[in-house]
Amino acid sequence: MEYYPAPGRNHLFVPGPTNVPEPILRAMNRSNEDHRSPAFPKLSKSCIDDVKQIFRTTTATSFIFPTTGTGAWESALTNTLSPGDKIISFRLGQFSLLWIDQMQRFNFDVDVIDCEWGAGADLELLKQKLQADRSHSVKAVCVVHNETSTGVTNDIGAVRRILDAAHHPALLLVDGVSSIGAIDFRMDDWKVDVALTGSQKALSLPTGLGIVCASPKALEAAKHSKSTRVFFDWGDYLKFYKAGSYWPYTPSSQMLYGLRASLDMILNEEGLDNVIARHCRLAEATRQAVRAWGLTLCTKKPEWKSDTVTAVVVPSWIDSNEIVKIAYKKYNLSLGVGLNKIAGKVFRIGHLGNVNELQLLGALAGVELALMEVGYPVTLGSGVAAAQAHLAKQTPLIKSRM
Amino acid sequence: MEYYPAPGRNHLFVPGPTNVPEPILRAMNRSNEDHRSPAFPKLSKSCIDDVKQIFRTTTATSFIFPTTGTGAWESALTNTLSPGDKIISFRLGQFSLLWIDQMQRFNFDVDVIDCEWGAGADLELLKQKLQADRSHSVKAVCVVHNETSTGVTNDIGAVRRILDAAHHPALLLVDGVSSIGAIDFRMDDWKVDVALTGSQKALSLPTGLGIVCASPKALEAAKHSKSTRVFFDWGDYLKFYKAGSYWPYTPSSQMLYGLRASLDMILNEEGLDNVIARHCRLAEATRQAVRAWGLTLCTKKPEWKSDTVTAVVVPSWIDSNEIVKIAYKKYNLSLGVGLNKIAGKVFRIGHLGNVNELQLLGALAGVELALMEVGYPVTLGSGVAAAQAHLAKQTPLIKSRM
Amino acid sequence: MEYYPAPGRNHLFVPGPTNVPEPILRAMNRSNEDHRSPAFPKLSKSCIDDVKQIFRTTTATSFIFPTTGTGAWESALTNTLSPGDKIISFRLGQFSLLWIDQMQRFNFDVDVIDCEWGAGADLELLKQKLQADRSHSVKAVCVVHNETSTGVTNDIGAVRRILDAAHHPALLLVDGVSSIGAIDFRMDDWKVDVALTGSQKALSLPTGLGIVCASPKALEAAKHSKSTRVFFDWGDYLKFYKAGSYWPYTPSSQMLYGLRASLDMILNEEGLDNVIARHCRLAEATRQAVRAWGLTLCTKKPEWKSDTVTAVVVPSWIDSNEIVKIAYKKYNLSLGVGLNKIAGKVFRIGHLGNVNELQLLGALAGVELALMEVGYPVTLGSGVAAAQAHLAKQTPLIKSRM
Amino acid sequence: MEYYPAPGRNHLFVPGPTNVPEPILRAMNRSNEDHRSPAFPKLSKSCIDDVKQIFRTTTATSFIFPTTGTGAWESALTNTLSPGDKIISFRLGQFSLLWIDQMQRFNFDVDVIDCEWGAGADLELLKQKLQADRSHSVKAVCVVHNETSTGVTNDIGAVRRILDAAHHPALLLVDGVSSIGAIDFRMDDWKVDVALTGSQKALSLPTGLGIVCASPKALEAAKHSKSTRVFFDWGDYLKFYKAGSYWPYTPSSQMLYGLRASLDMILNEEGLDNVIARHCRLAEATRQAVRAWGLTLCTKKPEWKSDTVTAVVVPSWIDSNEIVKIAYKKYNLSLGVGLNKIAGKVFRIGHLGNVNELQLLGALAGVELALMEVGYPVTLGSGVAAAQAHLAKQTPLIKSRM
Repeated sequence: MEYYPAPGRNHLFVPGPTNVPEPILRAMNRSNEDHRSPAFPKLSKSCIDDVKQIFRTTTATSFIFPTTGTGAWESALTNTLSPGDKIISFRLGQFSLLWIDQMQRFNFDVDVIDCEWGAGADLELLKQKLQADRSHSVKAVCVVHNETSTGVTNDIGAVRRILDAAHHPALLLVDGVSSIGAIDFRMDDWKVDVALTGSQKALSLPTGLGIVCASPKALEAAKHSKSTRVFFDWGDYLKFYKAGSYWPYTPSSQMLYGLRASLDMILNEEGLDNVIARHCRLAEATRQAVRAWGLTLCTKKPEWKSDTVTAVVVPSWIDSNEIVKIAYKKYNLSLGVGLNKIAGKVFRIGHLGNVNELQLLGALAGVELALMEVGYPVTLGSGVAAAQAHLAKQTPLIKSRM
Repeated sequence: MEYYPAPGRNHLFVPGPTNVPEPILRAMNRSNEDHRSPAFPKLSKSCIDDVKQIFRTTTATSFIFPTTGTGAWESALTNTLSPGDKIISFRLGQFSLLWIDQMQRFNFDVDVIDCEWGAGADLELLKQKLQADRSHSVKAVCVVHNETSTGVTNDIGAVRRILDAAHHPALLLVDGVSSIGAIDFRMDDWKVDVALTGSQKALSLPTGLGIVCASPKALEAAKHSKSTRVFFDWGDYLKFYKAGSYWPYTPSSQMLYGLRASLDMILNEEGLDNVIARHCRLAEATRQAVRAWGLTLCTKKPEWKSDTVTAVVVPSWIDSNEIVKIAYKKYNLSLGVGLNKIAGKVFRIGHLGNVNELQLLGALAGVELALMEVGYPVTLGSGVAAAQAHLAKQTPLIKSRM
Repeated sequence: MEYYPAPGRNHLFVPGPTNVPEPILRAMNRSNEDHRSPAFPKLSKSCIDDVKQIFRTTTATSFIFPTTGTGAWESALTNTLSPGDKIISFRLGQFSLLWIDQMQRFNFDVDVIDCEWGAGADLELLKQKLQADRSHSVKAVCVVHNETSTGVTNDIGAVRRILDAAHHPALLLVDGVSSIGAIDFRMDDWKVDVALTGSQKALSLPTGLGIVCASPKALEAAKHSKSTRVFFDWGDYLKFYKAGSYWPYTPSSQMLYGLRASLDMILNEEGLDNVIARHCRLAEATRQAVRAWGLTLCTKKPEWKSDTVTAVVVPSWIDSNEIVKIAYKKYNLSLGVGLNKIAGKVFRIGHLGNVNELQLLGALAGVELALMEVGYPVTLGSGVAAAQAHLAKQTPLIKSRM
Repeated sequence: MEYYPAPGRNHLFVPGPTNVPEPILRAMNRSNEDHRSPAFPKLSKSCIDDVKQIFRTTTATSFIFPTTGTGAWESALTNTLSPGDKIISFRLGQFSLLWIDQMQRFNFDVDVIDCEWGAGADLELLKQKLQADRSHSVKAVCVVHNETSTGVTNDIGAVRRILDAAHHPALLLVDGVSSIGAIDFRMDDWKVDVALTGSQKALSLPTGLGIVCASPKALEAAKHSKSTRVFFDWGDYLKFYKAGSYWPYTPSSQMLYGLRASLDMILNEEGLDNVIARHCRLAEATRQAVRAWGLTLCTKKPEWKSDTVTAVVVPSWIDSNEIVKIAYKKYNLSLGVGLNKIAGKVFRIGHLGNVNELQLLGALAGVELALMEVGYPVTLGSGVAAAQAHLAKQTPLIKSRM
C-alpha cells in the first residue's frame, strides 16, 4: 500500500533514514523467533562484538538499544552523569540543540556554547573553559560529531587534545549518529568515553537501533551515576552479557539479522576504509556541484565540511522548502529541508549509507531541475559535470569486480 | 543465514514474540522513506488513530514509541507520577516483578502486594488499602493484566469497581503487553488511565513498538509529573501531533506499515471480537489438553486463566527445561521456559497472535512427544484429542470463506 | 492482497506446490539483474551442476527450463524421439494419463499399458512386450516414478533390470516430478536416460522451473530426433553451455537464486539422505494415521506406497470433495482432491518438500476434524496418535542442534 | 548471497529484464498456495482479463504462459500455422532473426525479407509481395514491433493498412516483447491477430510469463493448425477457461500476484497513457543525450526510433563491449551490449519498465563516465544537460502528488 505512488525508485537523499540495500531487506524478511533459543546468543554476540569495529574501538563495551538516536543520547547521559553535573556542550544546529534540551530536562547543569549555525564547535572557548576549570567541576564535554542540520563535522581529535592539554578528566561524549560508519571515527585513538549512532544512517538499516559504545572510564562512571534509568541502563545489559543471554528485554530479531548483514557488507565486502573513502568522494562531488551552481554551503569553513550531508544555502528570494517540494512532487527525489532557524534558507542533500556514484549524479541532476523550477538560474548539467569530474578521478573499480 | 537450520517451519509457541504472518512481512519488505514527506503523516495518523480500537478506547490518546514493553512501562510511569509518589502494585510473576523493580528504581514509593505465583492480584487486600487511604496518598494502582510468566489474567474491571467503590482518585495503570488485542480489554469501560502493549505480541509484528494509551486524566497528570523523561515524554509527541508531523524523532516506517497491515487484519478482515474469540477457543483447547495429559496449570483458579499463555506445571522429578530443549532440538518447537522462581518447574505454551487451530494442534502433538522424551507417561494423542473435541464445537467457518 | 484471508498459516498439504521456506523466500526477494553480466554465469553454473546431485547422477547433462512439469515432459520426448516412434507407457493415474496424451499429440506411437488406478506399472507385461520386441521397434519406455494422483511409486530399478534382461536398447524416460529430491532416485544406477522434475515439489520453490537430466545416450538420440522443437530444444542449451553464457533466452534470476538456496538446504544443511529419510518417516506416519482412522489407501499394495503423497479412499457414502472443502473453509488446510475417475472418492495428503513432523501432525489433526464434519465416525486424535508413535521412534535430533 | 557485490543500487539499463519495483517485490514475497483453492480463480481471472488492457484489446483472448518470450513466439506460431505454411517475415536484428530461425525449425516456409540492421521493416516490399499473392498462399505476416537489438520500432498500423489494401487474409502476428505496455500498441485498432509480450519487460516483473493475445480469427485458425503442440496449446487453456479453473498445469502464484500488482500500478495508479508518455519522454531525453555526445543512433531514420531502447553506435576505434564492461565494473551500471553482427559496434541503453527521470539521468551520467574511460572525447555533463532540457519541459507532476 502506497500513499503517494510514483513510477520508478524513490531517490532518498535526506541525511537519514537512508536507502536499505537488498541484502539487508533479504536478511530482515523473516518471522519472529524465540530470543531465548540457543541460536539467538550466537547472532547477538556476533553483532555486539562486530559493531565496535565501525567505532574503531576494541576497548569499549557496546550496547544495542531498541530505540532511536534520541534514546541513545539519553542512554549516554543518564548512565554517566548525575543530576546537577556540569556539562559543556555546543549548540550549533538542530540536533545539538535537541541534545542540549535533553540534557537540561534531565537536570544537568549545561554550560552551552552557542556557535553560529554553519560553524563548528568553538574549540578555543572550550580550551579556555577547561583550563579555567581547575576544580574539575565539569563532568563531561558533549559534542555532536556531525551536525546533520548544517552539514558541519567537528574535530573530535582536537577536542581530545584540548582535554589532554588541560589534564581535564571530564568525560567525552560524542553523538556520531550521522557520522559513525561513514566518516572516519576513532573512538580509541580519540579516547571518546561514549559514542553513539543509529541504525538508519550509515548502517543503512531501518530506524530502531540506538548503538552506544562506552569506554571503561564511562562504565566506571555508570556505577556512580545517580540519574534514574531502567530501559536505557547499561547495568541491566551487563548482567545479561555475563549470563550469555544478552538482552534484558526482547530485541528485534529482524533488526539484528539486518545489522549482521550490514556489518558484513561494510566490514567484509567493501571494507570500512573503502566505505569512508566512498563517502568522502561522494561528498566532495556534491560540494563541487554546489559550487558549479553558484550556490554556497551552509558550512562556514572547509575544515568543517561534512562527508555525509551537504547543506546548501539558497538566495534570499527563494524558499528552500519549494525546492524540496517540487523535487518530491515531480522527480520523486527526497531532499532534506532546512530546520529551525535555517528553515526556508537551506536545503540538504544527504549522501550517506549504501549509495553510489550514479545514484548521487541522478539526484544532483534532480536538484538542478528543481532549482530551475523555482526560478534559480541554474545551468542544467553544470553541477553534474563538476561532480563527474571529481568522481572520474577518484572512483576505484568495484572491489569484487576488479 | 540461519544459525541452527531445521527442515520445515519453526513452531513458535512462546508467549511472544509471535508468528509474523505473510501479509505483515510483505508490508514491511521495503526500503526506508523520508518521514518528513507528505505521505508520512497519512500513514502515521491512520496507525495512531486505529490502534486505539484494540484498546477499545475513543477517549484516550495513543502514543507509538519505538521501544519495547519495558520502555512502554517507563513511559506510563514517568509521565504520570513524580518521584516519591505512592503506588500500589502486585507482584505475582516475573513481569509484574520487573515492572515493580522499575518503579522502585524510579524512586516511586511502591506498596508491593506479593501474591503467590500462579494466583491473581489480591483484590481484597487492594480494597482494604484503598478504603484505608482516606488521604488519597496512593497516586496509582498498577496491575499487569496478563502475567505472562504464570498464565494469570487479572480482572481489571474488578479493580475499577474497587477504586470507584472507595471513591479513590488513584490512576489505574495497566500492563496489557500480552493481552491487548487478544484478550478482551476495555479501556474506556474500565476507566483505565494508562494501558500499554508491545508490537511482538497480539499484533504479531516484530519487536520494536511500545504502544501506550493515556486517558484525559493521565494526560492531565502528565502536566504535573516531575519524573525526568525525554525519549518517553508524551508532551513531545503532543507537540508534534498538533503540528501534524507526529514524531519527535525518526520512527521506523517499516514497523508502521507493518502495524497498518496488522490493524487491517485484526480490525477489518477478522474483526476484533472474532480475534478474541479465537484466542479464547485456542486457550481452552490447550487447557483441555493439559488436563488430558494429567498435568496441572500454574494458574491456581479458573477465574485467572489466561487466553494467551498456558503455564504447565511438571512433576517434581522432571526438569521443565528439558522439555523445552528437546522440543526445540527434535521438533523445531519453541516453548517458553519457566522463569525465576518457577524455573524448571513450569513450561509455557504461548497461543497468541496470528495463529490458528491446526498450528496449535501440531504444537500440542509436539508437546506430547517432548513429554514422552523426558519420561513423562503421556498417552500420545490424548491432549490433541481433548483439544480437538473443544475446537470441533467452537470453531466457526473462516469469515472470508463462508 | 489476499482473496480469502484467514488467521494463521495456511496448511499446505497438497502434493505440490509445496511450502516455500523462509530462506528461499529471502533468496528470491530481489529485483531483476542483467543475465549477461559476469556474475550470472557463476550462479547459473553452480545451479546447473549441483542440481544433478538430487538426481544422483554425475554422467547426465542437466537443463533448467523456465517452464512447468508439462514442459519438462515435452522436452524429454521431443528431444529424444521422432514422430511415429514406438513408446511403451503405463496409464495408472491422472499424470501418467496426461503424459500419454501429450505423447499421442506429438504423434508418437504409444503402446499404452492400462493399469488399475492405485496399482503400479505392470512390469510383467512390460517384460513380455520387450522380450517379444526382437526388432527393437520400441524406442522408449516412459514411466512416471511417482503417480501423484494415486500415491503410487513405481520401481524404476526393476524397469531397468527388465530392459537389461531383454537386452533392449529402448530409452528409459522417467517423470520424477513428485519424487526426485524426496524419494530415493538413482539416475546413474538405474541407467535412466531422461529424468525430470519441477521446482514446486521437493525443491520447495515456486512453480517455474522444469529440470531435465539427459544421459549421454539421450543426448546422442537428441542429435537424430526429428520432432520439431525450439523452446525445449537441448541443442540450443548445449550451444550456450559451450559459450559459457548458459541460457538461449532470459532465465528468471529470482528462481535461480531460489534454487541455489534450495540446493544449499537439501545438499549441505540437511543432506539428501536425511531429506529422503524425513519423507519416508512422514509418509509412514501418515499411513499409520489412515489405518487408525479405519480408512484405506488408494495404493493397492505396500510395494507401491508413495513417500510424498498419500491418497485416501473414503467410504462410498462420503464425497471426498466435501472433506477438502471443509478443511479449507474451517481449518485453513489445503488437501488434494481426487482427480478424474477417482474424483469424489479419494482425497490426498501431500507430505513433500520442506515440511516437518509437527506440521504434518497439525494437518492430520485437521483431517480428523474434517472427517468428523462430513459425518465419518473418526475417533479424534486416533490418527495423530498413530503417527506420533511412528515419529517418536524414527525422528532424529535436528542435525544442526545436536 | 551476491556474486559480485557493490555499494549502492545496481543501475539496470539493459532493455530487459527491467527493474522490479518494491510493490511488486512485496506482492511476490509469499509461499506457494494451492492453485485448486477457491481463491485462485479470482486471482487468475482478474489477471487474464486485465492484462488485455495493455494490448488495448477487448476482442482478443489472452493466455498467460509460464514461459519466456521465446515460448510465447512458439505459442503464436504453432497454434495458428501448419508445417509448410508460407510466412513473410522481416530480419532486421537479433530478435527478428531468432524468431525467423524458430519459424524455419518448425518447418514453416518463411519468405525472409532482410533489412539493414538499424532500419525498419521494408513495407514497400511487403506491399508488393502481398499484392502479388493473388492466391493468398501467404498465411501470415510476422513482425517484431520493437527490435530490441537495434532500437527500431516498426509501424504495425501501416502493416495493417497494407494488408487491408491488398485485401489479403494473412494473419498478422506481432512480437511486442519489448514494446507492449511501454510503447503504444493497439491490437484491436490494428487488427493484430496474435500479439505477445514477456513479464520482464514493460511489466517490470521477473522473467517467467509469456503473455499472448489471440484475435477471434487467430482462435479460428488454431482449430485447423496442424503444428504439434501441447505445452503451448491454446486449446488446453480454453478448456480450463470454460471450466473456470483456468490452468492446464500449475501456474506460479507468485508471478500472478506480481502481475496483479504490476497491472494495478500501470492501469490504476499511473494510467497506461501516462506510462506510454513517460517512456516517450525518457527515450527522447536519451536520444538528445546521444546527440550531445556526438554519437549516432543505430536506428537509421527517426520514424523507426524506439521508445524503450536506444542503440548507440560507437566510433570504429572503440569496442563498445569495453564501455559496457567499465560501466559495470566501476559504476554498477548495466548496459546492453551489441549483439551478433553489431557486436562491439553498438551499446544499448534500455529505458523501459518502472523507471523514472532521475534514474535515467544517473545512468546517462554513468554512460558519460564510461565513454571517458574508454577514451572517447565526451564533455562530461553534456548528455545529461541535453536530457534534462527535454525532461524539464515534458515531465508532469506525479499524478498522486499534485
